[in-house]
Order: sequence, then C-alpha cells, then structure tokens
Amino acid sequence: MGSSKYEKIIDYAVKRGFLWQSYEIYGGQAGFYDLGPLGVLLKNNIINLWREFFVRKHQEFVVEIETPIITPSIVFKASGHEESFTDYAVECTQCHRIFRADHLIEEKLNISTEGYPAEELEKLINENSIKCPVCGGVLGNVRKFLLLFQTHVGPYSPENLAYLRPEAAQGMFTNFKRVYDLARHKLPLGIAQIGRVARNEISPRQGPIRLREFTIMEIEFFYDEANPNCDLLYDHCREEKIQILTGEQRQRGEDKPVSISPAEAFNDGIIKSPWLAYWMCIASKFINALGVPGSNSYFEEKLPHERAHYSKQTFDQMVIVDRWGRVEVSGHAYRHTYDLERHIAFSKADLYAVRQLKTPKIVKRTEIQYDKVAILKMFGSRAGDVFKVISTISRDELLKIVSSAQGDSIVLNNIVIPKSVFTVAEVEEQQWVERFVPSVSEPSFGAERLMYIAMEYAYSEQEDRIILKFPPKIAPIKVGVAPLVDREPLKQFARKVYEVLKERYYVMYLEGGTIGRKYALADELGIPFVVTIDYDSVSKNDVTIRERNSRKQVRVPFSDLLKAIDLGLDGLDISIIGYPIVEYYS
Amino acid sequence: MGSSKYEKIIDYAVKRGFLWQSYEIYGGQAGFYDLGPLGVLLKNNIINLWREFFVRKHQEFVVEIETPIITPSIVFKASGHEESFTDYAVECTQCHRIFRADHLIEEKLNISTEGYPAEELEKLINENSIKCPVCGGVLGNVRKFLLLFQTHVGPYSPENLAYLRPEAAQGMFTNFKRVYDLARHKLPLGIAQIGRVARNEISPRQGPIRLREFTIMEIEFFYDEANPNCDLLYDHCREEKIQILTGEQRQRGEDKPVSISPAEAFNDGIIKSPWLAYWMCIASKFINALGVPGSNSYFEEKLPHERAHYSKQTFDQMVIVDRWGRVEVSGHAYRHTYDLERHIAFSKADLYAVRQLKTPKIVKRTEIQYDKVAILKMFGSRAGDVFKVISTISRDELLKIVSSAQGDSIVLNNIVIPKSVFTVAEVEEQQWVERFVPSVSEPSFGAERLMYIAMEYAYSEQEDRIILKFPPKIAPIKVGVAPLVDREPLKQFARKVYEVLKERYYVMYLEGGTIGRKYALADELGIPFVVTIDYDSVSKNDVTIRERNSRKQVRVPFSDLLKAIDLGLDGLDISIIGYPIVEYYS
Repeated sequence: MGSSKYEKIIDYAVKRGFLWQSYEIYGGQAGFYDLGPLGVLLKNNIINLWREFFVRKHQEFVVEIETPIITPSIVFKASGHEESFTDYAVECTQCHRIFRADHLIEEKLNISTEGYPAEELEKLINENSIKCPVCGGVLGNVRKFLLLFQTHVGPYSPENLAYLRPEAAQGMFTNFKRVYDLARHKLPLGIAQIGRVARNEISPRQGPIRLREFTIMEIEFFYDEANPNCDLLYDHCREEKIQILTGEQRQRGEDKPVSISPAEAFNDGIIKSPWLAYWMCIASKFINALGVPGSNSYFEEKLPHERAHYSKQTFDQMVIVDRWGRVEVSGHAYRHTYDLERHIAFSKADLYAVRQLKTPKIVKRTEIQYDKVAILKMFGSRAGDVFKVISTISRDELLKIVSSAQGDSIVLNNIVIPKSVFTVAEVEEQQWVERFVPSVSEPSFGAERLMYIAMEYAYSEQEDRIILKFPPKIAPIKVGVAPLVDREPLKQFARKVYEVLKERYYVMYLEGGTIGRKYALADELGIPFVVTIDYDSVSKNDVTIRERNSRKQVRVPFSDLLKAIDLGLDGLDISIIGYPIVEYYS
Repeated sequence: MGSSKYEKIIDYAVKRGFLWQSYEIYGGQAGFYDLGPLGVLLKNNIINLWREFFVRKHQEFVVEIETPIITPSIVFKASGHEESFTDYAVECTQCHRIFRADHLIEEKLNISTEGYPAEELEKLINENSIKCPVCGGVLGNVRKFLLLFQTHVGPYSPENLAYLRPEAAQGMFTNFKRVYDLARHKLPLGIAQIGRVARNEISPRQGPIRLREFTIMEIEFFYDEANPNCDLLYDHCREEKIQILTGEQRQRGEDKPVSISPAEAFNDGIIKSPWLAYWMCIASKFINALGVPGSNSYFEEKLPHERAHYSKQTFDQMVIVDRWGRVEVSGHAYRHTYDLERHIAFSKADLYAVRQLKTPKIVKRTEIQYDKVAILKMFGSRAGDVFKVISTISRDELLKIVSSAQGDSIVLNNIVIPKSVFTVAEVEEQQWVERFVPSVSEPSFGAERLMYIAMEYAYSEQEDRIILKFPPKIAPIKVGVAPLVDREPLKQFARKVYEVLKERYYVMYLEGGTIGRKYALADELGIPFVVTIDYDSVSKNDVTIRERNSRKQVRVPFSDLLKAIDLGLDGLDISIIGYPIVEYYS
C-alpha cells in the first residue's frame, strides 16, 4: 500500500488551497473536508461537466430537481434504509474508540467480509485475537450501527424524528408522480439531482475519499420494462468499449475485466437493464473527460451479498489509484421497482405510470345494478328517497353491502330494501391502458472523489516541477496573464488584458520573478493557458498564448484573444485559428 | 393583506414545476420545498448571477470556499449562536401545537415585539387573552427555543453533539487564517460561500419565503479598519442611488426611505463601514438585474434590539411584494471583529492579520543574557555541559526560571549555576508590523426568496394569458423552437435547430396547436426567445427569432443563430446584429 503519491497530492492540495480537513482550529473532525478557492472552482467545473453529460445533452427526457437534506423518518423507513443502511461497529472496551468491525478484520486478515453477519465478524475477531488498533485493548461486541444522521424537525420528540438523507434518490422517488405529470406521462424519464448528502460513517480514515458529508450527483431513470425505448444504447454505445469485471468472474477468483461494448453487454445478459448499460456508457465517457484513460477504469459487478437492499444488480465504476489500488467513483444500481413499490405501500400514493396497450386487456368486473321499475312499484311515493340514498353511496360500496348482507334485504338510512331489486353480474371490459410501476436504473457519483481522481490524474512532476494537467474544461483557473517583465508599459497592457479576460473566466495575474517562474507557477496551479505580454505586444497590440501541455505558443491579435481562448477551452488546438506558432520563452 | 397575487404565483409555480411543498405523498412538511425542473434552472441562474456580481467580477480579492453543513457544537458555542439563536415558543395546552409567541402577538395586536423578553410576551398573551389560533385552547408559558437543528457525529453522546449550520459564515471565520495565507496576507479579502443552511423555525407559515432549509449566498469581507482600501466605493457607487430607511427615521415613526448614494451614506455616517456600503451598492445592482426596479427596494436599518448578537449595524434589503408588503431578500451586517475574536478565545488559534506600520512601534521587552567568560572561568572543563543545557531551553523559559528562582543559583539538569552569570535587562525594540483582528462586513442572501421575488416581478397577465418576463440571464429555458406547423419538411429543420441549440442552452421544442399557441406557452414559461421555422426557412436556410417582451421578430441566417441568441441573452437587442425585423406571426 504505497502512500507516497496520495500524500504528495494531499500536500499539494492543502498547500495550494484545494482542500483541507474541516474545523482545523478546533482540532479537526474526521470525515469532513473544506474546499478552498481552487477546490471550489474544480468541483463546480466537474459538477457542470456532469450536468452537461448527464442532463443537458439529454434534456428531452432528463430533468433536474432539488429536494431537502432533512427528511422525515417515514421516508427512510419506507425506503428500507432505517433497517438496512447500517454497518457493524465494535468498541474498544479500554479506550472506547469505535471502529468498523469489517475494516479491522479486512486489514488484519486481508479478506473481504462484505455481507457477513455480526456473529461471524465477532467470531473472526475473537479467533484471531484482533485488538484495538490504537490502544491494543480488547474489543467488545459487534453491533449494528445506523449510518443515518438523526435530527428533529421542531422540538425533540419521537414523532418529529428526521434523518439527513444519505442519497438524493428518495427525493426523486417521492416526487416521481409530479415530475411524470410535468413530463406529460412520457417515459423514459430521468430525474437528476445534485446535492449534499450525509452518512454517519464509523471512524472514516480515507481523507477526502470517505466523507461524512459530500455532494452526490444522481439520476433515477424511470422506464417501462416492457418497452424500454432505449435506441440510444445502440446508436451511441455500440462502438464504445468498457471494461467489466463480472460477478461470475469474481466468484471464479478472476480479476481481469473483459472489454465489451455496453450494447453487447446488455445483449449478452451481462448487464440486466438496457438503461443501466446506457448510463454506464455515458459514465465511461464522462470519467474519460476528467482525464482518466479508459484502460484505467472498469466496472465491477457486486455480488448479491454485497449489493444494497434495493438493488437487483449493481456495478461500481472503479478507477485505478496509487494508494488504494482502485477506488469507486460511481455506482450503477438496477433499483427496478423496489423504491416506488415501497413508497406506494407506505404512503398509499399513486406512483404508477400508465402504458398504452396494443391489444386491449379483457378485465372482468363485478357490477351491481338495480331495478328502478321494481323500486317504484314497491315503494310508491317513497321511491324518491330510495333512489336518493342509493345515489349517495358508490357502486363499489353498494356491491359490498348487498354481497355481505345476511337475509333477504339491506338497510340504508333506515329504509329496508329487498335484495331482489339488485342484480349482481360479472361483466367483461376492454382496457386500452394499464397502470404499472416503472423500473429504475440509477447512476450515482460523488463529486469530491472525482475531484481527487482528477487531481491524481492531472498530477505530474517534470524536472522537480509540479504540473497539473487538468483538461481545460475542469481547470480551476483558465488563464494566466503574465507581463514578460514587471515593468511599464507592459504592466499596463497586462492589466488591460486581465480586465477583459476576467469578465469571462477565472484568471490569475502572474507577477514577480522571471517569465519562467511565472509559467512554472501557472503549470503548478493547472492553468491551461498563459497570455504573455512583451514589448512587441504594446506596439503591435497582440499577445502570445502559451498552451501548458504542449508548451506551444501562438501569437494572436488582442482582438482575437477571447476567440482563441474559447477554442482552447473547448479542447481544440489554439493554433487552428490560423496565427503563427512562435517560440520565445519557456 | 391581499393574498391573490402570491396565490396566483404559487399556483403557477406548482403547475409549471418551479416548486412545491416537500414530502407531499406523506402529507407534506412545513418549511420544506422541493424545486422542480424549471425551479432548479431558475435558481441555478440566480446563483450564477450572484457569483458573477459578487465573486467573479471581484476575483482579485474575493474567493469562494465550501464548508460542511454539519458542524461540531463548539463552533456555535464560540459564535454565540448556541446562546442567542433562539425564538420564543408557546405551546397550546390543549392541542400541543407550537407557535412563535411574537408572531401570535403581532398578528393579533399588530405591533412589533422584536427584542421583547419572554415575560413581556407572556404578559401580552395573558392580558389580551390570545388563544391557540388552531383549536382556541389556552396557551402555556413562553419559552426560549433553540433554532439550531441538532445531530451527533458518531454515536449519540454529549461530546458528539453537532449542529446543522444556520449560516455559512462560521465556515469563513474558522478558515480565515488559511485563506488569508493563500491570499498572501493581502487585505481586503472576501471569502464567499454558497451552500445549504438549516434553521429549525417554529411553525413556519410563509411558503417558500420562510424555509427550514435553504441555500444561502454569503460573503464575509475582511478588511483593516485602519486602512479599509475601499476606493471601489467612490469609483463605482458615487452615482448609484439606493433607498435607506435609517434607524433614526424608524424611531421617529417615519417610513419613507431617503435616496442617497452608498458613498454619501458612508461619508455621512449613515452606514458605519465603507465595505458594508460597497456591498449594499452591489446588492442593489444585483436585485435590479433580477428584474426589481430600484424604486421597489430599499435598505431598512435594524434597531439595536432587533440586531443579531454579532452585529454592530445591520441593514435588511427589502423588496416590495404583494402579499406581505415587503420581504427581506438580503441582510447586510457589520460583524466587525466579533466572530474572529470569539474563535480566537475559544480555539486559541491565531486568527490575526498583520499590518505594516508607517512609523515603527516601540515595544519594551525583558531579555536575558549570560556571561560566557564567567561560565568558562567558573566551570572549566564542565563549561561545555553548561552551554549545552542552556541552549536546549528557550530564552523565555530561561528568563522564567532565573526570575522565579529562590536563592543565588538555579539548577539545570543537575548542574547548579549561580544567578550572577545571567543579566536580565529591559530592551526597546522597533516593530514595523502589528497583529490585529480584521473587521468584517457581510452581505447575505437567500436563494429561494430571490426565486420567489424574480417570479413575482416577472409575472404578468395580458388578455387572459400569463407572461413571465424574466430577464434573459435568469430565464430557466432560454430558447423555444417552433415549426410554424407540425409538418415536414418543417419538423425536420426544427429538429436540426433544436439539436444545435441544445448543445449550448436549455431549449424547449414546441409542438401541438397553432403558432400562436406555441408562443403563448413559451411566454407562460418565461422563454425569452422563440426560433420559428417556416417554409422559407427550409429553402433559404434561415429562421426568425421572436423576442418575448417586444414581440419583435428578426430573420436570421441559420449560421448566425447562435450569435444572435447569445447577444439577446446578454440583454442586447437582437436586431443590432443587422438582419431585418419582420412581422409574420404573433
């Protein structure tokens, strides 16, 4: 477990203001990280890129909503989290520190215990004499620990119990009907959300990788299992290869993923939902856009005992990292109808979708009718009262009363009515529509992990210098402005360039030291373009633009500066704009 | 209290998917709102506009950070919230519903009770026989209610108590030193944050205006009181007039604000901090950009008993609204040195800034020296040991030992050293730098309230049609695409137009009904531009762009469509691009 690259990156990230542990002045709090100025810019760029890939490019059928973090407990009772969103904790009987039982065992014995029950874990701890890793004390019993943060809306009392959501998903499930109505009952329908979630992790120890509070980016994608309408999978994901390590492979002890297109993986039954396959395809392209080559990420299928309670099939998207070997950056869960069904059961709300049928369904229904003539004959002038009382109750209710009545008559509003005036018959009906619970596939990402991944993949060292090779779209600061020397009239011109650029981008004015030192600082901060102002700039009203990775420099008239930078930020070679490549300074 | 416009807007907002009450399928929860697809787009546009006004345009000295919502209790003990962030609650003895005591009194007696103590409120309730507004029951005692949501990080236990932050501000205060270091010790320095906060309001009843969880946009702006360096106030806020209702006016019972420039208001002593004045100037421009005319907003100075515990002066920015007369959209608090001083006291951390002095400060210091020759003489070959032991302890420590020692000698590491070898003398030193606690001015906005304000000011009715006249920058959907009729080849061309536009904007494809109906729908959704495709479009490869407010239409070649839309979204007249204004369809 080499830790050097991770530590280098965290050192760099803290020093340069990407992130640091929260509440430092009060001794810090494990599992919480603050983002500094560069961190916020990086994270927002990653969020916007996710939004572009997952929402905006799919805006015909994916919409974004926002729901609260504080959630009444009934929602997570219905979702099954109150029962299942737990880990096994074990407390040191000596120092009273609390640890995750599975982590202690995994570290000591180097085996996976995912899905093991409490007794099994306790047995392993006892048999292997596993002790408190801090003080060496004897460990107590293994017990379930609820990972939901608890609070109360209004005063403290059991009926006011609320949880902080551990996933955004329930906000989409509980709102399915509203958004489905807004979408005019069209399926498939993706409901996305980007927002804060909280998980009361037991002693998290992986820096910004395992946080107790983080930003999730999720889509609950609803579709009709009978007609998934998933042409996109074949249109866009037939050529794209992804790496999958299947559950079967894992059970055989294999660890080399297979390379396959998402469309093929669905056709072959490796991925069970076509939309799960589609979003895995998009996830692969997205991770690639963050700077991770395809060969460094793969999807690992979870085994049944490793899956969350709501999932029929789950793939974790893994990215190779230096410290932990690999880290999960997204989860792809086939939640099928689980959540909607649970909420229907708990809330009694109508969370069904409706599908048109090609051939009608014949439905048998028991119907009750009554003989008006017979009633008129029987009741004479009081017949009006009888009609009135019958009209006030529904047919279903009337049917129930008549069917369950003992004897020959029923009593409604003190009027005795003979059963003989009613006819109960079974009728057949053609139904052209059908209600159903839509299926759900869910891609889910954690923004802070992606930040770390982007940093690790951007980080490089060249001749004792640090260079962060962020893709331009996610680079925190887009442009540096550097006068060749910090003298007039260069400074004044540089200031003008800065003012123009800052209307559009985050820009850094580079001053102090040689031009080489300015470039080095820009490289270290991951700035993709530096605009240099030299003496010719002043006389000719032009600048040079230096591209970080290629160190290529293009001389551009001031009037075309924004155009050139825009091209570069779109990932294009800025020299295509047609101005000469120059080589002045490095 | 006319409620019709508010209700119309809420009805509209729910119907069109801007927002609705959270957890509807479980009966709803007061004080929580969900944002639907259009709501998220509107809110994100407002947030981005805020970021543009407050952060990006000030990026040389304002940076954005992000800190967690869950906060160890020590932070809010230090900040004074644990003691002061309370409201007075009163419980009905019959139905046990809980109400805000001040609200019940204000509604019944139409007086303001801000700052009244519990006994006073209780007296008013009893004297005026104020009863439970729901069941008419007798009200119990008035008691303080802490508005912080409580939770625990890790297992439930007092030392794990944490709060959900009610403001982002403490994240900036506790991180002041880190960001100040990153900014290379330059002041002024603004630390901004946009994020979720939570306040456990007692029975909130103002829809999306008073939420228990919402998004705050805040700057803690740190500056040196002795050298505020606030040229911007004079450069940019000398001409701009704002409306201020001062505390003095309010005490005299006046309600007509004075019109004054922020620079003048600071010079006249009406606003006590120059940076408070500057950010009020920006706040005024920002609210204006959301569609609120200057005459419909003003700053109301809070009276001393109405201010939060940390503030030396507070102005609430008020906007005229139909239902409540006016509503607070931002708060401008002169927090001066309160928060940093409290955190210095509670954490013992160094949260000071450093200022250069023009003339040095003379500082007296007691210094200790020792006579090497005397030691050599006295100790001979053991002198080395003496030097060694003296060098291992600091001068300050040595001074303490020598000054406090009884008798003629001291003992260090078992060596007895006569006091006579030491000289204690007072020396004077010139200091050219000085530590100080910077002052803070804070502008603070709630994003959801701004959404409501933007909707109320955009909402209009014309000939039984609803039109939302959002400024283009905050309009949720930027462009509509409408084939003149839903037939080929128009549909195919329209589809092409849609595909091009959606790469860049949120776009709606309008289909069904006449072109007039399509325009009407676009107007109702607040879409500023509709691109119409007619038969000429197909043959000439051009389109018309209809601007919502003016209903002006410009005929533009397809190749210039993006350019024209970009101009329009920047708030410019699209006809300046030079193509003919046409009048076809309305």
